[in-house]
Amino acid sequence: MAKQQVVTPSILPGFMELLPADQMVFNQMLETIKKTYETYGFIPLDTPMIEKSEVLLAKSGGETAKQVYRFNKGDNDLSLRFDLTVPLARYVSQHFGDLTFPFKRYHIGKVFRGEKPQKGRFREFYQCDIDIIGFETLSVINDAEILSVIYSTFKALGFSDFTIRLNNRKILNGFFESLNISNKTEVLRIIDKLEKIGREAVMAELKDLGLSESDSVSILEFVGIKGSCGEIIENLRKLQVNNEMFTEGIDELEQVINYINAFKVPAENYTIDLTIARGLDYYTGTIYETILNQYPSIGSVCSGGRYDNLAQNYTTKKLPGVGISIGLSRLFYQLREAGVLGENKKATPSQILVIPMKETMSQALELATMIRNAGISAEIYFNEGKIGKKFAYADKLGIPYAVVVGEDEVNSGLYKLKNMYTGEQVELNIEQIIEQLKA
Amino acid sequence: MAKQQVVTPSILPGFMELLPADQMVFNQMLETIKKTYETYGFIPLDTPMIEKSEVLLAKSGGETAKQVYRFNKGDNDLSLRFDLTVPLARYVSQHFGDLTFPFKRYHIGKVFRGEKPQKGRFREFYQCDIDIIGFETLSVINDAEILSVIYSTFKALGFSDFTIRLNNRKILNGFFESLNISNKTEVLRIIDKLEKIGREAVMAELKDLGLSESDSVSILEFVGIKGSCGEIIENLRKLQVNNEMFTEGIDELEQVINYINAFKVPAENYTIDLTIARGLDYYTGTIYETILNQYPSIGSVCSGGRYDNLAQNYTTKKLPGVGISIGLSRLFYQLREAGVLGENKKATPSQILVIPMKETMSQALELATMIRNAGISAEIYFNEGKIGKKFAYADKLGIPYAVVVGEDEVNSGLYKLKNMYTGEQVELNIEQIIEQLKA
Repeated sequence: MAKQQVVTPSILPGFMELLPADQMVFNQMLETIKKTYETYGFIPLDTPMIEKSEVLLAKSGGETAKQVYRFNKGDNDLSLRFDLTVPLARYVSQHFGDLTFPFKRYHIGKVFRGEKPQKGRFREFYQCDIDIIGFETLSVINDAEILSVIYSTFKALGFSDFTIRLNNRKILNGFFESLNISNKTEVLRIIDKLEKIGREAVMAELKDLGLSESDSVSILEFVGIKGSCGEIIENLRKLQVNNEMFTEGIDELEQVINYINAFKVPAENYTIDLTIARGLDYYTGTIYETILNQYPSIGSVCSGGRYDNLAQNYTTKKLPGVGISIGLSRLFYQLREAGVLGENKKATPSQILVIPMKETMSQALELATMIRNAGISAEIYFNEGKIGKKFAYADKLGIPYAVVVGEDEVNSGLYKLKNMYTGEQVELNIEQIIEQLKA
Repeated sequence: MAKQQVVTPSILPGFMELLPADQMVFNQMLETIKKTYETYGFIPLDTPMIEKSEVLLAKSGGETAKQVYRFNKGDNDLSLRFDLTVPLARYVSQHFGDLTFPFKRYHIGKVFRGEKPQKGRFREFYQCDIDIIGFETLSVINDAEILSVIYSTFKALGFSDFTIRLNNRKILNGFFESLNISNKTEVLRIIDKLEKIGREAVMAELKDLGLSESDSVSILEFVGIKGSCGEIIENLRKLQVNNEMFTEGIDELEQVINYINAFKVPAENYTIDLTIARGLDYYTGTIYETILNQYPSIGSVCSGGRYDNLAQNYTTKKLPGVGISIGLSRLFYQLREAGVLGENKKATPSQILVIPMKETMSQALELATMIRNAGISAEIYFNEGKIGKKFAYADKLGIPYAVVVGEDEVNSGLYKLKNMYTGEQVELNIEQIIEQLKA
């Protein structure tokens, strides 16, 4: 007989695939994020992964367009979505008449970017987005609520030492306007590097850009304002910058801070940081970044902000919004690399392994069915073999409990429930087993 | 100013996109399936949607290959997965050493098939799969457990009048072997149409195929065996067919039936049906189909079976398995079309709308935060305006409760909780509101 021909099983570089124990942890994180988003009343959304290229790429150019997986099928020019924001803009425009505004939606799903694979960057990855979309106007209180969602989400994920950095683009923009600086984008790009390259290098780069030394000093003084939120707002006002946008930005920031307090977000979990300036042309007001203080090298784990107009490529209606995104695949990868996730032994949802003996299969199936009907995840070991091998199966999967269903147990109605982590055994009837597993 | 250029927002035909109220129902179905699968101890799996074409298409030819979304990016020849079984085979082969067998996994995710769009058929759709994969052998009890999962899943989805049709390919194959019928596949294909085209037409087609009249009569007699499971098995044995495979098939079927009883699946929810013969070359033993008795035209809503060797394209290891799949997008679409899902008014996860008055925003945020901290989904209405408009918002989204936070309420600590469905109002303190919402 000819030798069997096999193809070596493998996946592409830059794609994430997890073993069961890791997948359990990943799913738990995803569920926690989902549950928190829902607690705030965000509506789940699901859009196609494949869209018409002409629609999906209505705006994009440059780097994004190059990364998109774009292909033809029949006469159709198709693309895989590269984020969840463009599909949201398309969805809201397309279904405008069927939606109620403000429209609060969350979307957790995979997006695709064919970028060069590198450590911690993926070509297919989960994003967990929330956005609140208004029709024509949207109260700034929403900006505070979004910050409250960030806080609740990372708290629910088990973190306590994290800081949500808050800023308002109007302050930055107004300040630059007051100095008659026209190449804002370039200046912001340089300032963004302050933490990385230091004051001297930033001054030099600003000079290269043609800024006067006094303007550069003003800018660095401005972004150097530190302190409590109250102090920063006070110091900003003291600058006496004569610019409407600047003042508007401070007012908005102050309002957001006030509402954040009512949302009971602890003061140690947020701060105003005048140096953050995300997504240079997209955001128009409040902006957020989130740093895990013990792992600053991971960078921002949740970012977003306020924008004036979500869907100008698809509708003439004015749809202001505010939103954030968590890049879950990357976050999971970084946390695992940093050892934050610890080692998870549990590679299955099962809470108990039911072990039948030869003559008691039917009774074991009945027992397992009762446990399952109580909503508890239970597995039955069907293979024959030595009892040690059966317990070893529970061990390997990290199933916390095991119970042997032998003839004595069936006759007496009393079963030895074994805690697989401690080795402890207690004799219980079926109702007591279910109670114990529920606890 | 030039008029704004917009692209008409739309998606491709054959892709499903739901409005919020439908999405809520869809997600609830998905959650129910997921929860049931987990109750049986199936491990969640997630694999890349994009795989190497050479790996993904190692076996496929013909129709499947034509439907695959296949494209190049850089030097890579890529394909979108067209089912969840091939990725499972690849995963199990690739990670063999890291997995524990029997390996029970579930996978709920989208798959892609560029077929001609038609009513109820989608190009991107959810499959909800479970499989139990053994190493070298796999006990037939697993076949009974899979049927128990089907039963529990459709029960949990709210159905009671459904029938799981059960058969065993060995009985069919052995019977044909005993008649020396070589073109089994063709015969099975014709028999599969019995319900649709009737006995006469089937006889005619069998004759065209070259079968003798007596063989055709035998075949129709065989597939015509009806009755309770016990009667069918008895009648099959009475045929005295002298074929090992045939006998083995009956023995297996009998065992499966016995174990199904221990799993407490009611007799009215399953039946042996000797005419079903799914996936002609893939399945090798037990096969399942599931019919909603009041909606037979939908066809089988959950199908699957036993196979001898999952991953022969990727490994020389013998990996027998048994599994089923629910095509959720199609099922949802068909149920909605048939009016089974009723009309869902609730277009949000929110259980309550908190309505602040001008001077009580902070207190309203605090109230909402307390409700959310109790794990209840709550939304706050931030826009200013008439009270009627605010209640209308709750109405439009189908939020079941609303509470107005006015100054009197804040001062007294007593709030009027309004049931938006009945219009009833009760005066409660915050703890009582939370209690009421939890109930």
